Amino acid sequence: MRLSMVGLSSVDTALTWIDTAIRRLGEEDAPLREAMGRVLAEDIRAEWPIPTQDSAVLDGFAVSAHETLGASAYNPLSLPLIEVAAGAALPAGTNAVVPLEHGEPDEAGRVVVVEALAPGDNVDRQSTVAAAGALLISAGTLLGPRHIGICAATGLTQLPVVRRPRVRVMVARTTRSSTVDSNGPMLCGLVERDRGIVSQYIAVDRRRSALAEALATGGSDIVLLVGGTGPGHDDQAAPALAAAGELAIHGVALRPAETVGLGRNASGVPVVLLPGSPAACLWSYELFAGRAIRRLGGRNPELPHRSFMMTTTRKIVSLIGMTEICPVRCRLAGTAEPIASFAEIGLMAAVNADGFVIVPETSEGYPSGASVNVYRYDDR
Amino acid sequence: MRLSMVGLSSVDTALTWIDTAIRRLGEEDAPLREAMGRVLAEDIRAEWPIPTQDSAVLDGFAVSAHETLGASAYNPLSLPLIEVAAGAALPAGTNAVVPLEHGEPDEAGRVVVVEALAPGDNVDRQSTVAAAGALLISAGTLLGPRHIGICAATGLTQLPVVRRPRVRVMVARTTRSSTVDSNGPMLCGLVERDRGIVSQYIAVDRRRSALAEALATGGSDIVLLVGGTGPGHDDQAAPALAAAGELAIHGVALRPAETVGLGRNASGVPVVLLPGSPAACLWSYELFAGRAIRRLGGRNPELPHRSFMMTTTRKIVSLIGMTEICPVRCRLAGTAEPIASFAEIGLMAAVNADGFVIVPETSEGYPSGASVNVYRYDDR
Repeated sequence: MRLSMVGLSSVDTALTWIDTAIRRLGEEDAPLREAMGRVLAEDIRAEWPIPTQDSAVLDGFAVSAHETLGASAYNPLSLPLIEVAAGAALPAGTNAVVPLEHGEPDEAGRVVVVEALAPGDNVDRQSTVAAAGALLISAGTLLGPRHIGICAATGLTQLPVVRRPRVRVMVARTTRSSTVDSNGPMLCGLVERDRGIVSQYIAVDRRRSALAEALATGGSDIVLLVGGTGPGHDDQAAPALAAAGELAIHGVALRPAETVGLGRNASGVPVVLLPGSPAACLWSYELFAGRAIRRLGGRNPELPHRSFMMTTTRKIVSLIGMTEICPVRCRLAGTAEPIASFAEIGLMAAVNADGFVIVPETSEGYPSGASVNVYRYDDR
Repeated sequence: MRLSMVGLSSVDTALTWIDTAIRRLGEEDAPLREAMGRVLAEDIRAEWPIPTQDSAVLDGFAVSAHETLGASAYNPLSLPLIEVAAGAALPAGTNAVVPLEHGEPDEAGRVVVVEALAPGDNVDRQSTVAAAGALLISAGTLLGPRHIGICAATGLTQLPVVRRPRVRVMVARTTRSSTVDSNGPMLCGLVERDRGIVSQYIAVDRRRSALAEALATGGSDIVLLVGGTGPGHDDQAAPALAAAGELAIHGVALRPAETVGLGRNASGVPVVLLPGSPAACLWSYELFAGRAIRRLGGRNPELPHRSFMMTTTRKIVSLIGMTEICPVRCRLAGTAEPIASFAEIGLMAAVNADGFVIVPETSEGYPSGASVNVYRYDDR
């Protein structure tokens, strides 16, 4: 099969295909300790009021505030000694807490108070944090430590979360035994970053029939097939996907990832065909496979990198009609310096870069001094 | 023991103690697949040139560029047919590659070429990416997928990385059996976020002798003891640490985490005493324990949250002499709206917030419309 680079799909067309084809996975219960970093699948509401009862904010002496009226250093008042620890429920008839260091137990077994309190002083009032039934955390929230804390505080031991996408990574075995598989470990790292689970990671014979058979195998939520996407005799990934189901898109106007493919197998499982060249593999993952995995997992589908407006220190040149990823260095605050491209030094361009600029299809680049949106790597 | 809140240390004093007392841990070798997210402990240099030899960028026909001089659609030239696959070494005597779709094998077993090539066209030249011995990744880099990719490409199977800090989390057992331990799961999540390993997570009797004994136990790089830090009779964390080694700081001018403590046990292992109230526990972790763990692991010790300049929509009030954490919502682009405080609704303030402002000791807050630095939660 020959791939005509004239008929390339636009990046937008490919993204739209992904957004249309791929839906969020279902949910499962995760123990609280394993719920961090997961996406909440349902709203969490307070089963009881929080706090469930009025309780002491700090260690001290529970009092009825009106009995402290008029108390001062010149008019110490002696009250019943009712010690309470921080967090403990207020005994009936009390509504304020004198801090431990402000009350002095006397010999008569009472406590001497030298300042007046208002009702509620040093008290956590029932329902202050949330009434029974109130929304605590919305569905779709990416759960962080503070969410885990509030769930633990309300007595929850497990949470309904979106299932993690199971990702089958298949590498079309090269005929050259000397070629190192640099893509496998990188892809596994990317899938992990996007909170997918690499459920299988295998090399497959690169003949069409073997690839088609492997693509048809079940047990995962998405399949990534690396290599064999080009126009060579030996490149059978696209025809294999066409045979195993549907080849929706093959060839995208993205540099450096022109030979990426998208489709699904006969069971409807989405398949992304990634070029074997490491830089192209990286970018076809970042823009397409990663987006699909993030969507499956209920996460924000956009690139996970932080982006900032920065000023170019030199011209960025890009071909009209191709979306191009341009690596930049950001050594001076607020500036982006274009560096050797993926075409020139492959994956090393990403290693040398502090971030990248995505030059859209319709642009031939930016002059020096232009304001551009830079996606930053976060390696600090 | 009574804790005088008059003699509180400043937040800066506590941070300086941590930065002085805590050094990066040693290194260990990690398999490539497990190295992502770790901190590189030594520079990685290229053992061989990259590429090791001139090789084809794409599938096609290897040629000697000077033999293609003058080739055009009107002057097709017939050259020896030497097919090469993408990534394969160029055969001796060739220095350019005609793309597969631009060359036409003829019946004489030769290839017909219709355009002239320059030496190096479609060739990855030896050493273009890196000369032998060149620096690939600097020590201290937080390893991301692209670093794993380049290491795999150079044939590395393991990397020297900083050891992950082993964190012992101990909770001073409360006398009130009804109190749920909301801090444990949250702390484990925080330690995990900062790439520490919770090596042990136990409840300890809150008597001084029991705590002192537990603090003296080895087997971790840092100990977090939660609860019992206040001024109550029942609060024995600080005297226990003084007995088990050194109580360097007890009481910090930070709201909401005034009773935090810092020190080390007799073996020199750093110990952080965290208040048991969930909001205070969170903030004493974020500012102090987390910083210590990030330093041990060779990471950036600063808060891991992204920060942005934003405009307050209402006044933020804070007490002079106390550093205060103020939760904010960021519903309108670029604005920070102060919301119910940690003092008012505890940990729920963090759950309701999109981020927080740290008001320094010397400030009594900010008027409405002020420009403030907001640390954002990253829950998208």
